[in-house]
Amino acid sequence: MRYKCTVQYDGTLFHGFQTQPNLRTVQEEIEKVLYIITKDNIKIQAAGRTDTGVHSLGQVFHFDSSITMGEWNMQNALNSRLPKDIYISKVEHVDKTFHARYSAKKKEYHYIIDIGEYNPLYHNYRYYVKHQLDINKMIDASLCFIGEHDFKAFTKNHNLINTTRIIDNIIFIQNDNIIIIKFIGNGFLHNMIRIIVAMLIEVGRGRKTKEELIEILEGKDRTRAPKTAPPNGLYLINICYNI
Amino acid sequence: MRYKCTVQYDGTLFHGFQTQPNLRTVQEEIEKVLYIITKDNIKIQAAGRTDTGVHSLGQVFHFDSSITMGEWNMQNALNSRLPKDIYISKVEHVDKTFHARYSAKKKEYHYIIDIGEYNPLYHNYRYYVKHQLDINKMIDASLCFIGEHDFKAFTKNHNLINTTRIIDNIIFIQNDNIIIIKFIGNGFLHNMIRIIVAMLIEVGRGRKTKEELIEILEGKDRTRAPKTAPPNGLYLINICYNI
Repeated sequence: MRYKCTVQYDGTLFHGFQTQPNLRTVQEEIEKVLYIITKDNIKIQAAGRTDTGVHSLGQVFHFDSSITMGEWNMQNALNSRLPKDIYISKVEHVDKTFHARYSAKKKEYHYIIDIGEYNPLYHNYRYYVKHQLDINKMIDASLCFIGEHDFKAFTKNHNLINTTRIIDNIIFIQNDNIIIIKFIGNGFLHNMIRIIVAMLIEVGRGRKTKEELIEILEGKDRTRAPKTAPPNGLYLINICYNI
Repeated sequence: MRYKCTVQYDGTLFHGFQTQPNLRTVQEEIEKVLYIITKDNIKIQAAGRTDTGVHSLGQVFHFDSSITMGEWNMQNALNSRLPKDIYISKVEHVDKTFHARYSAKKKEYHYIIDIGEYNPLYHNYRYYVKHQLDINKMIDASLCFIGEHDFKAFTKNHNLINTTRIIDNIIFIQNDNIIIIKFIGNGFLHNMIRIIVAMLIEVGRGRKTKEELIEILEGKDRTRAPKTAPPNGLYLINICYNI
């Protein structure tokens, strides 16, 4: 029996999604609870990793179990045992052709910037930027990332063979002091969104131009895009399996 | 020189406001930074304590120092050294007649209840209630607390001589699944708001009546009001010094 689960988490107190020795991760917490429920050492397979501090409202994983439980029962069994910073929002029975990672068609991430006065209650949930930002320049510069590009300059991982990804859309929403940047694409490299956000902020501050961003993108040199926006503003919103 | 400071904090990782040995508290963090700035062992005096997990958007404290700094400079000196879950939102020079605790005329607290689906991103900031609540019954029952009453049944602290307080107003605001209950009064006993909220939820669930609440209030017996709503839904919003 294959189960597809949608999981929300507050990334603040996790060392990311993926299991790491001696560190608290989302995967390990879920697998511990699955062991309690099924008495089997189940390994879950997620759509992708998220880093320390990155939040999720729509991460997806699947796992197989010989135990047959109703969707609702499995959801309750998980949520009643999981720590409060993880919540399973949906469980579905799926057939064996479904794979959380390989079946994923699109991913949606949001990045939240706050240019207003600092509020310590949101310090884990927004990136506070103290500078004036020219949002129209940022929107214009973001266009250079849309489409299929080799994002080699925009990732931490230098050993990847294929660093080409397709970004379908980058959407800006401003509401008073909050700027939400929505990214929709077929996949994102490690730190890619956070580096793009950092570069867009440089443009908004007037320290970089759109032309310089195009140069960096085409130059494929990570040292030209040295900044990375903090993880706490980043949210994995949705994994899309059907188009 | 007397300084009046307004301080916001995320109560999640503090063992309340007031200094306690070997525990992380808001007071200790602020006094450590004041020592760095002034090289004096300054004790701050707050308007009141808050418990572990209770948040603040408007706590006030004062302190005296022989060092004269501009209001803006003092605010920056503090904020640049304080941890990210504390933020000084205002510093004012005041004369020696001002006392953060004794000069306080009114205090305002908000309590946030969420009756919608659980979201782990808000788990430290709202009280999730899984039951249907009849908000009109809660509003009606809240009226019995308004005015001057002996709140002996509604506090954890049994050794207080004077347990009489005046609640000016209790205001309910509902927005979709969020219920905010605003309390304004001359002061609140230890756990008083959280016990009142727990009792109002009992009324909203149909497990207690307004008449029973009046009986408990008049009976002055804490064992009749045994529940306490969790601290993470509670916010100290404002201390009012001028009326």
